[in-house]
Amino acid sequence: MVKAAARRTFEGMTVYHADRRARLAALLPGAQADAMLVTKAVNVRYLTGLASSNAAVLVRADASAVLATDLRYIETARRLCPELTLAEHRDVSGHLVQTAGPVRLAVEAHHMPVAEYNRIGGDLVPYTGLVESLRMVKDEAELDLIRTACEITDQAFADVLTEIRPGRTEREIARALEFRMMELGAAKPAFDSIVAAGENGAVPHHSPSDRPVARGDLVTMDFGALHEGYHADMTRTVAVGEPAAWQRDVYDLVRTAQRAGRHAVRPGASVHDVDAAARGVIATAGHGEYFGHGLGHGVGLEIHEVPFLGQDKPGRLQDRVPITVEPGVYLPGRGGVRIEDTLVTRDGRPELLTQTTKELLVL
Amino acid sequence: MVKAAARRTFEGMTVYHADRRARLAALLPGAQADAMLVTKAVNVRYLTGLASSNAAVLVRADASAVLATDLRYIETARRLCPELTLAEHRDVSGHLVQTAGPVRLAVEAHHMPVAEYNRIGGDLVPYTGLVESLRMVKDEAELDLIRTACEITDQAFADVLTEIRPGRTEREIARALEFRMMELGAAKPAFDSIVAAGENGAVPHHSPSDRPVARGDLVTMDFGALHEGYHADMTRTVAVGEPAAWQRDVYDLVRTAQRAGRHAVRPGASVHDVDAAARGVIATAGHGEYFGHGLGHGVGLEIHEVPFLGQDKPGRLQDRVPITVEPGVYLPGRGGVRIEDTLVTRDGRPELLTQTTKELLVL
Repeated sequence: MVKAAARRTFEGMTVYHADRRARLAALLPGAQADAMLVTKAVNVRYLTGLASSNAAVLVRADASAVLATDLRYIETARRLCPELTLAEHRDVSGHLVQTAGPVRLAVEAHHMPVAEYNRIGGDLVPYTGLVESLRMVKDEAELDLIRTACEITDQAFADVLTEIRPGRTEREIARALEFRMMELGAAKPAFDSIVAAGENGAVPHHSPSDRPVARGDLVTMDFGALHEGYHADMTRTVAVGEPAAWQRDVYDLVRTAQRAGRHAVRPGASVHDVDAAARGVIATAGHGEYFGHGLGHGVGLEIHEVPFLGQDKPGRLQDRVPITVEPGVYLPGRGGVRIEDTLVTRDGRPELLTQTTKELLVL
Repeated sequence: MVKAAARRTFEGMTVYHADRRARLAALLPGAQADAMLVTKAVNVRYLTGLASSNAAVLVRADASAVLATDLRYIETARRLCPELTLAEHRDVSGHLVQTAGPVRLAVEAHHMPVAEYNRIGGDLVPYTGLVESLRMVKDEAELDLIRTACEITDQAFADVLTEIRPGRTEREIARALEFRMMELGAAKPAFDSIVAAGENGAVPHHSPSDRPVARGDLVTMDFGALHEGYHADMTRTVAVGEPAAWQRDVYDLVRTAQRAGRHAVRPGASVHDVDAAARGVIATAGHGEYFGHGLGHGVGLEIHEVPFLGQDKPGRLQDRVPITVEPGVYLPGRGGVRIEDTLVTRDGRPELLTQTTKELLVL
């Protein structure tokens, strides 16, 4: 099933792209701009369907658009974006500033480098996060792609469980997960996989090493599939051999916190409150200082995108916003536990996108 | 052999990092700066050994340095960078501007977004390509890592040749190459692999599709291994079944052009002249308009880095600068040929880093 689903692509989706450009165009008057120059690659992909390392799109307030890319990608652009005006140019942003003419042109200040901003001329309005704010709420096509990415992730974990045993190294387990995801149809891993055994589990972003797994280890795996540009993100911690009491205690605590976080996810909830729902559980147990990162983040065309769930973050959740919920407890020198799902609400009802069990697996 | 080599890591390489920081510090007076804030991830890695999505390093003119990163990476920083002053902070650049105090602080204007530049305050000097100019000439540790990445790439190609046959899809061949590189010790593919069969070969950056390879196709494969942060880059075009006369002619032309380009690579040669050596061969044969990209580029911690070989590019080659030489001819609707090696000169002598044959393989 996963294999068949994995064949869905962006082609034939121009109706979505046109709708997204229209929604961006509608925001331009509020941004005091006549047009916007979109240069961040995932935002160009979102608005046009073209995935390229050198492309930019000019969107005017009337929703007309010009897509610029270089020779390497122009054939693909012609095929994917038949409804768009295309320009073949190496200096895509410089060319589109000329194309735009004498207008107030919003640019992506969180992405455009200072040097490019100073070079391209024009009456530029630095603006932050406009396309990202559109991207936060996903359409059905996007939810389908994320759902498929998460299915691949779940299936790969199930298929690789037998590889998690004494003697296998963190690196070997990471490779096994990644290979299996790609066999199941993933384009590639959504990010550098984390596999952390024993004391390495205390490092939230540990890189897989040649450390072999040993009996008595907790092993944390944080990984996901990339499918048609969309990311899945899941973390599970398993026990190799019968866990010690402290390991089971920490696991149960993180699992309880993760459940509290998931249950707080609903349209209208403040991201602070969702974070606090999980963080409070860990703090009450006296481990607050060992949970040093935010509770989660949006996922989509980027692995980390708005909204961010954290104590000092602004904003509220909305429907159709896929996010992760991933509390952890990291005990320096001893080890750690993290449990993470990707989930979303639709019409207010929660949908768990990663569905692997959160029972403590003892392997 | 490859497997053993692949275990070499950045650890224990602090002597290289200190030397690199000293060379950067020596450039600061010429850049009218008292210190530099390095924020581009690969440049931070180059100067410290730390690979992180959120880290920055402040290097002062006396070569003292402060590395800032967040909780997720601080343990790794302590292990890899024992000689450095460390700061744990989420806003790494903002924190280091404060740490620097009232000095003229060079920033990476080709990387730092406008919004960050405007936010962090300080007496900032926008500067472009300073660390990249240091990175262009590789030290022995780096050449070893690139050499290993290229060995993995060669071996994977040899091992996967039997998979390139009628009925196999572009996507399947790309996956086979990628899996094999990872089995051989690659961290991951150095970039999104290109596999283009038949008419798809006319698209220089074609994404592997479900098109099956058919007898009579030329198949172009552009791929490479990533090893400890360093990239390999190789392209080969093979024939499936006996090639037609036009296919053999185009192949021979590109092969001749590639040889001319490689032979022009020497310390002191202008990048324009190296490009022209290959381009002239293709133009003389009447196919100049079908070779629409530059001849090659540097490789190292980035897949594309200085120097760039092109008609309109400035500069001259130096010793110990690994580059690619990759001419191509792309005939719209019919197909294409590209042949690419990664190579370097040491003490003026060329060393071919990718060593796969350039005879036309007929499979």
